[in-house]
Amino acid sequence: MGQQFSSPNGELQLNFELKEGVPYYSLSYKNQPVILPSKLGLELKGKPDFTSGFESHEVTYADFDETWEPVWSEEKSIRNHYKEMTVTLQQGDDFENRTLVVRFRLFDDGLGFRYEFPSQPNLAHFIISDEKTQFAMAGDHTAFWIPGDYDTQEYDYVESKLSEIRPLMTQAITANVSQTSFSPTGVQTSLMMKTNEGLYINLHEADLIDYATMHLNLDDEKMIFESWLTPNANGDKVYLQSPSVSPWRTIIVSDDARDILVSRITYNLNEPNKIEDTSWIKPMKYVGVWWEMITGKSTWSYTDEFPAVKLGETDYSKAKPNGKHGATTANVKKHIDFAAEHGFDGVLVEGWNIGWEDWFGNAKDYVFDFVTPYPDFDLEGVRDYAKAKGVEMIMHHETSSSVRNYERQLDKAYQFMKDNGYNAVKSGYVGTILPFGDNHYSQWQVNHYQYAVEKAAEYQIMVNAHEAVRPTGIGRTYPNLIANESARGTEYQAFGGSKPNHVTVLPFTRQIGGPMDYTPGIFEMDISKLNPDNNSWVNSTIANQLALYVTMYSPLQMAADLPENYERFMDAFQFIKDVALDWDKSVYLEAEPGYYLTIARKEKGTGNWFLGNVNGNEGRTAEIKFDFLEEGKSYIATIYSDTKDAHFRNNPQSYEIRKVTVTKKSKLSQYSAPGGGFAISIMEAEKADLKGLKKS
Amino acid sequence: MGQQFSSPNGELQLNFELKEGVPYYSLSYKNQPVILPSKLGLELKGKPDFTSGFESHEVTYADFDETWEPVWSEEKSIRNHYKEMTVTLQQGDDFENRTLVVRFRLFDDGLGFRYEFPSQPNLAHFIISDEKTQFAMAGDHTAFWIPGDYDTQEYDYVESKLSEIRPLMTQAITANVSQTSFSPTGVQTSLMMKTNEGLYINLHEADLIDYATMHLNLDDEKMIFESWLTPNANGDKVYLQSPSVSPWRTIIVSDDARDILVSRITYNLNEPNKIEDTSWIKPMKYVGVWWEMITGKSTWSYTDEFPAVKLGETDYSKAKPNGKHGATTANVKKHIDFAAEHGFDGVLVEGWNIGWEDWFGNAKDYVFDFVTPYPDFDLEGVRDYAKAKGVEMIMHHETSSSVRNYERQLDKAYQFMKDNGYNAVKSGYVGTILPFGDNHYSQWQVNHYQYAVEKAAEYQIMVNAHEAVRPTGIGRTYPNLIANESARGTEYQAFGGSKPNHVTVLPFTRQIGGPMDYTPGIFEMDISKLNPDNNSWVNSTIANQLALYVTMYSPLQMAADLPENYERFMDAFQFIKDVALDWDKSVYLEAEPGYYLTIARKEKGTGNWFLGNVNGNEGRTAEIKFDFLEEGKSYIATIYSDTKDAHFRNNPQSYEIRKVTVTKKSKLSQYSAPGGGFAISIMEAEKADLKGLKKS
Repeated sequence: MGQQFSSPNGELQLNFELKEGVPYYSLSYKNQPVILPSKLGLELKGKPDFTSGFESHEVTYADFDETWEPVWSEEKSIRNHYKEMTVTLQQGDDFENRTLVVRFRLFDDGLGFRYEFPSQPNLAHFIISDEKTQFAMAGDHTAFWIPGDYDTQEYDYVESKLSEIRPLMTQAITANVSQTSFSPTGVQTSLMMKTNEGLYINLHEADLIDYATMHLNLDDEKMIFESWLTPNANGDKVYLQSPSVSPWRTIIVSDDARDILVSRITYNLNEPNKIEDTSWIKPMKYVGVWWEMITGKSTWSYTDEFPAVKLGETDYSKAKPNGKHGATTANVKKHIDFAAEHGFDGVLVEGWNIGWEDWFGNAKDYVFDFVTPYPDFDLEGVRDYAKAKGVEMIMHHETSSSVRNYERQLDKAYQFMKDNGYNAVKSGYVGTILPFGDNHYSQWQVNHYQYAVEKAAEYQIMVNAHEAVRPTGIGRTYPNLIANESARGTEYQAFGGSKPNHVTVLPFTRQIGGPMDYTPGIFEMDISKLNPDNNSWVNSTIANQLALYVTMYSPLQMAADLPENYERFMDAFQFIKDVALDWDKSVYLEAEPGYYLTIARKEKGTGNWFLGNVNGNEGRTAEIKFDFLEEGKSYIATIYSDTKDAHFRNNPQSYEIRKVTVTKKSKLSQYSAPGGGFAISIMEAEKADLKGLKKS
Repeated sequence: MGQQFSSPNGELQLNFELKEGVPYYSLSYKNQPVILPSKLGLELKGKPDFTSGFESHEVTYADFDETWEPVWSEEKSIRNHYKEMTVTLQQGDDFENRTLVVRFRLFDDGLGFRYEFPSQPNLAHFIISDEKTQFAMAGDHTAFWIPGDYDTQEYDYVESKLSEIRPLMTQAITANVSQTSFSPTGVQTSLMMKTNEGLYINLHEADLIDYATMHLNLDDEKMIFESWLTPNANGDKVYLQSPSVSPWRTIIVSDDARDILVSRITYNLNEPNKIEDTSWIKPMKYVGVWWEMITGKSTWSYTDEFPAVKLGETDYSKAKPNGKHGATTANVKKHIDFAAEHGFDGVLVEGWNIGWEDWFGNAKDYVFDFVTPYPDFDLEGVRDYAKAKGVEMIMHHETSSSVRNYERQLDKAYQFMKDNGYNAVKSGYVGTILPFGDNHYSQWQVNHYQYAVEKAAEYQIMVNAHEAVRPTGIGRTYPNLIANESARGTEYQAFGGSKPNHVTVLPFTRQIGGPMDYTPGIFEMDISKLNPDNNSWVNSTIANQLALYVTMYSPLQMAADLPENYERFMDAFQFIKDVALDWDKSVYLEAEPGYYLTIARKEKGTGNWFLGNVNGNEGRTAEIKFDFLEEGKSYIATIYSDTKDAHFRNNPQSYEIRKVTVTKKSKLSQYSAPGGGFAISIMEAEKADLKGLKKS
């Protein structure tokens, strides 16, 4: 027996043990095993490893309990309450007498632990060739997984037994423009699992700073996951110097799936906010010139004449426009008008800057300059027009993964934004990373994304980074990292479609680390209506799309479809107009990953609530109690739901809208179609407003 | 027979031929073969090669003759006179009907040719996997070569037959902190050769922009060199898009070795100056806090307490100084005093900025910030002190090859220089390149050095880049690239020593591409007198060191030894004080690579001349005619020469100084010791000045 300690409520118990010089930990929840005895350690390059040879250890304990207020979040304040055990491990002469610290934090909802490398004579600079952290599963659990990959997270989730990962891997690896898989049993975090006994277990990491992104590789005979770090271009994993720390390895666990969503340990394990003045960080709802390019209805590029562009030399003024360019002044003004009319905060414009003719697939270094608009985009005119209409423009920086070029341009690009009144940027990292040989999720690249976010903070710019590493709660420390893509977003609905239950998985996986710019709100599911050459189908009902504004938490929310598609369904669009972006409180009513999810959230600073349900592959009726509402108050609930015969594939635009009054005592049985859902706005009401409405 | 054309004076003749779809060229000089029929072409990745399948070609001819004035040079004006033949090669259907252009320029002193890739439908972006340019030698020539290497040029030259390269390679590859050799017969350019028939042939390249550095690999059975490009981190050589061009491949040839030094084809094949206002580009003579660190007498680092430094976190204010730090305020002021007293333009200070404690060998990313001085270096105080004394400070930016970090800091670092009155920077690229896997001479890195130079031009900053790629005449286009190291400099005399004849080779090799910051002027050859732990010996006499200020052309010249060593030999030091930096004319009096070199140069804007002779391993007497002097004028010549018993190893400080009068008719027989030489200042004189002086 080693050292044991428990979470504040006593339900989680951690055991640490040193056996023949090797450190082990195990975790139980309500006396059920979550992690069986698992090895800890790291292999170093050219030095003795940190995996064995530990001769002694000292243990200290601490308690911590504080409540902090996030700049944006699913609730007004977050409690950070844990018990801590710090194990200081000592190696002997054969291992250069080195010290390794493992710090464990037990919350009521999970465990976080990390390695710490104290400053010491025999460990100044060092290279981690492999991290050997084990997560030994107690059974052949069901997992919602995507293939491990150094360059993309944009896969559909597979639901399978752990033992089925290997046979399902090949088909799980769908094509992507930049992808590097590494093992037939390698999967990504955050990994969501469910045991036969009904335990929900989530593995991820927190505070990924100056370290390689962790994947998990499964020994599918022993059911042991082991950490698998993303390599740098030279194959090494992490370059560190003491004193330093690894990211936290997190295990969220509960017998109620809803608790996985409630958990804030990922944020709690990050450093507090480092931005002093956060007044400029504001949630935004936006439309944009984007979906039309994604579907192929229009293009990012301006002309078809240039097989190769040289910025500063290629003369666009004489080029023949291809007639399909999306980011024209007229089209952007149309979007500004639409945004202004319907109360949106911002308009995103992609394809505004020169260079899109050969931006992709050429490992081109100087691919964009981020300051030069196409001839048909009047940047100043648009800027002034938007300002006059009270709409903010959102900048777009596609880097084409030419990261050196982006860093070279970054100051100029950010300054250009500020000079023209842009306060938020969507950045993109499509394609193979430059410098050559590097990967999207290496330490080197992780440092780049962080650099871009921290520099943006200096300019008071909000960042929404696409194709960047998936978040690990960094948004607590740098709340200007307002969203990420970093998963299979709505765009894939126009690239052949995603699974109908995709959005019932994302909150349990991708969103454990932070908000996702999922870009919901697609009303026209038949993409061939936008582009006859694109036969994709959006596997979702309109009601499901509405619910996403509640279920997919993000302070940045797009209404992604074309204005003309919204204009056909203005009654449904009303929910997107009404729904809040920032919350005082969230209540997780129902949850089963892969199947359904129902969340109610209270708008920040008002008494209004918004409720969303998304549903998986089969029709289902949700049973909702409104007991989260305030005692004694009445509300008008507008329910946007699938009709009985709605279906993501056959009848996605069949919804109904009804208004009822609700109180704390109300209940609702509400059907959701396959790939469907429902959304409810629940507005505080004066008695006069309630006249003629039914009660729910 | 193919197409032939000749140089303006008819002595060089080029032949081009297409044989079975493969292009060949050959070159003769005065009817002697220089290049036997040699293949031209490039291999492309994932596309048909540009090596064969050429079905037809068109040839056009042109003449060119202009004279241009360099910002700094060995002479006031440079003639660019050539005949040009442009061959447009056409591939057929099997090769996607592509076009490749080879442009040949024949000067009287050599040939330049390059590949040109016109814009065309089947060649937008492309990757050169190998360049297959051949240079077929007509015999087993004698060569002065250093091992081919992707990361260092800092080797001693080997003189051998081409057939001896392979057996001598292993011993030629001496240890370096960053080195990557690639072939047992791979050598670097510029490569100097001499044939049994007395022809001197030099192979190099010009205008290396956005391309990989060329090495040469020898087929030592057929005596054919083939181009060998430096790979990027992923193994590919060059990423290009049409229209684009390769650098020029240059072949300088003559039966008189002096003509190799006279040749300006490397500059002529570069683009004209792109900097409009060049008033801020000024030659500089400087001293510095440098040799004391190189010898180990003092240190760049401030303290021995930090095995690992974190900029912004590590607190230097509480650190115990190691007592050996070179860049202290007091020491720097001493150097400023010395510079002011002796008329030097500038003072270089290395080790002024924090981070040197762990700067090397750790692949450390954020290694320097280039703006934060050590606690014992009062940057503002020194700045003001230097200004009051009329001395310019030269900034030092050691990047530790952490190139991403340097680019991130570059604007701030340059702005900091301008804010503090620094107009010149010595940059360094010691160690393994970051990003991982990249090489010092890859296309990626070549682009970095160019970026740093062009950005410096924006700030009106002169650059002296060490460990960067060897120059290829870029200094014509960006004359703010005032010098490079890029070869084995004087520092190696304190790292175990260089060959005594090293400086008789450098002007024929390294300096073909541009000026070298060789940092001559070492007066104390016994390094153990500076640092008892360093038994290095400077293989040179004092007279040789003086001559280097003439023979090693550079608009940037250091007097590298310690002030206290100069103070012991003030009479000899006078030459360093007197010698000019910029020239109206240069006369190459004697030259034999590896053996001796005598050059006279006329100071820009005055009637004064300076003459230098450096000598190889054996003693030798030079026979000098002063017929380069102006008719009817008398001059005072101060001759700084080796004594009869001087010797680089046994008696290096034995020199004599004598003053004589000289006229255009004067002659001089002057002995130079092994590793010795002589220097002469030749000052225009009034008759009164001549009183009592002997005639030479």
